[in-house]
Amino acid sequence: MKIPRSHPRYFSLVTREKLVEGFRRGIVVPEGLIAHGRGETFDYIFGERTRDFAERAERAAVALMLISERPVISVNGNAAALVAEELAELSEELRAPLEVNVFHWSRERVERIAEFLMERGCKNVLFAGDAVIEGIEHARRIVDRRGIYSADTVMVMLEDGDRCEILRRNGKRVIAIDLNPLSRTAKMADITIVNNVIRAIPEMTELAREMSEMSRDELEKIVSDYDNREVLRDAVRAIASLAL
Amino acid sequence: MKIPRSHPRYFSLVTREKLVEGFRRGIVVPEGLIAHGRGETFDYIFGERTRDFAERAERAAVALMLISERPVISVNGNAAALVAEELAELSEELRAPLEVNVFHWSRERVERIAEFLMERGCKNVLFAGDAVIEGIEHARRIVDRRGIYSADTVMVMLEDGDRCEILRRNGKRVIAIDLNPLSRTAKMADITIVNNVIRAIPEMTELAREMSEMSRDELEKIVSDYDNREVLRDAVRAIASLAL
Repeated sequence: MKIPRSHPRYFSLVTREKLVEGFRRGIVVPEGLIAHGRGETFDYIFGERTRDFAERAERAAVALMLISERPVISVNGNAAALVAEELAELSEELRAPLEVNVFHWSRERVERIAEFLMERGCKNVLFAGDAVIEGIEHARRIVDRRGIYSADTVMVMLEDGDRCEILRRNGKRVIAIDLNPLSRTAKMADITIVNNVIRAIPEMTELAREMSEMSRDELEKIVSDYDNREVLRDAVRAIASLAL
Repeated sequence: MKIPRSHPRYFSLVTREKLVEGFRRGIVVPEGLIAHGRGETFDYIFGERTRDFAERAERAAVALMLISERPVISVNGNAAALVAEELAELSEELRAPLEVNVFHWSRERVERIAEFLMERGCKNVLFAGDAVIEGIEHARRIVDRRGIYSADTVMVMLEDGDRCEILRRNGKRVIAIDLNPLSRTAKMADITIVNNVIRAIPEMTELAREMSEMSRDELEKIVSDYDNREVLRDAVRAIASLAL
C-alpha cells in the first residue's frame, strides 16, 4: 500500500512502515515495535515537528561531538531500521564511528544490523563485542574495544533503561535522543534531544556542516552555555500546552 | 523472565508480555504492537491508574449496555491477547456477545482469535462474517449478522480510525475504550473510556454486578446525565497537569 504524500500523517505512517519492514528483516524485535509506539505518542503530542528545545539540544550535541576525542554513535535495531542512510551521513560529518549495541542480543542479530547499515552506506561500523562495560547487567554491556569502551562521548537513541547512567559513571559524556522528556535516560544524559530521530539525525548532519568551520573555543562555549534541565523543562511544558 | 510484583511498572510489563505472547501466537499483528506502545505512553502520562473521568465513563457505559436491546462487544487481536478472561466475565454480566472484528483481516486470523477467546471461557463469540456495514472501506466492514450488524450499541476498544463514525451513521450507539482523548474515535464515540483495558474491563464487570438491580429509569438517568465532552476535556487536562 502506497501512502500518499498529502496524507496529514504521511511521515508517521512511512516511519511505521520502515519499522515493520525492519522487523520482517530481523533487525527490529517485537519489543522494539512497542517502544516505537510509545515514541509515536510523544511525537504526536509535540506536533510531529522539531521544537525549539530540540533544536538547542541538537546544536549542543553536534558541538560536543565535534570537540570530543573519541565520539561514538550507538545504534540499535530501531535506529538502523529508521535512519540507516541518515546515520551514514552524520557519522561521516562528525567523523564518529557507528557501533551496533542492542538490548536483545544475539551474534546473528548484531551482524544483521551491521550488514544492514553497511548496505546503506555506513562506512565505519563497529560490532566486535570484544569488551564489557562494568555495571550493566544486560547485553548492552557488550561493546567494541575501539568504540563505546574507549569513547569519551557516546550518542544513544531510542533506548530504555539504565545504560545512560552507567555510561556516565564510567566517565563518558552522553547525548540521548529520546522523545520522553521524563524518562530515566532523558534525565541522566548530559544532552537530551527530545525529537524524532527521523528529523533529528538529518538536522544534526546539517548543523555539523555549518559548524565545521567554528573554532574549538566557539564549540566549547556552545556546550558550556547549554542547560539540559531547562530543555527538559521546556519539553514537559510543551506536553502541558496541549490542553491550553 | 519472571517480573517481580514489586517492580514499580509491574502491570505495564506483564501487559507487554501478554501482548508479545499474543503476537507469537498469531493473534496480534506487528501494527498492533506499535499501537500498544502508543497507548502505553498515554497510560504512563495518566499515572497508570483509573482516573475519575474514566470511572464516570465506565459507569455510563455499563448503564447504556444494560438498557440496550442488542449490545455487542467488538474484540480485536490486541483486546483478545490482553483481556480474554476478563471479557468472558463482562460478556456474561452484560449478556452481550463478543464479536471478533479486525482491521488486518484473514479468515484464519479471525478463527484463531475466536478460538483463543473460547479457550479462555468466552461462551458467546460471534465471527461469522456474513454481513457488511456500508461506508467502511477496509476489512472492519465484515461483521456478523447477529452481532454488530443488528446491534443498537457497540463497544469497541484499542482501535484506530474511522469505524466509530460510520457505526454512528448507521444508527448505533458507540462506547469506545481509547487512551488517546484526542483521537478521532474518542471524539466520535457516545461514551469514551480513557483507560487501559486491563483495568477498565474488570471494573466494568464489577459495576455491572452492582448496577444489575437498578431500574431502567435509574440506568437511563445515568446515561442521559453523562457528558462525554466534559470527560474528554478532563482527560486532556490530566495530560496538562503532568507539568504542574
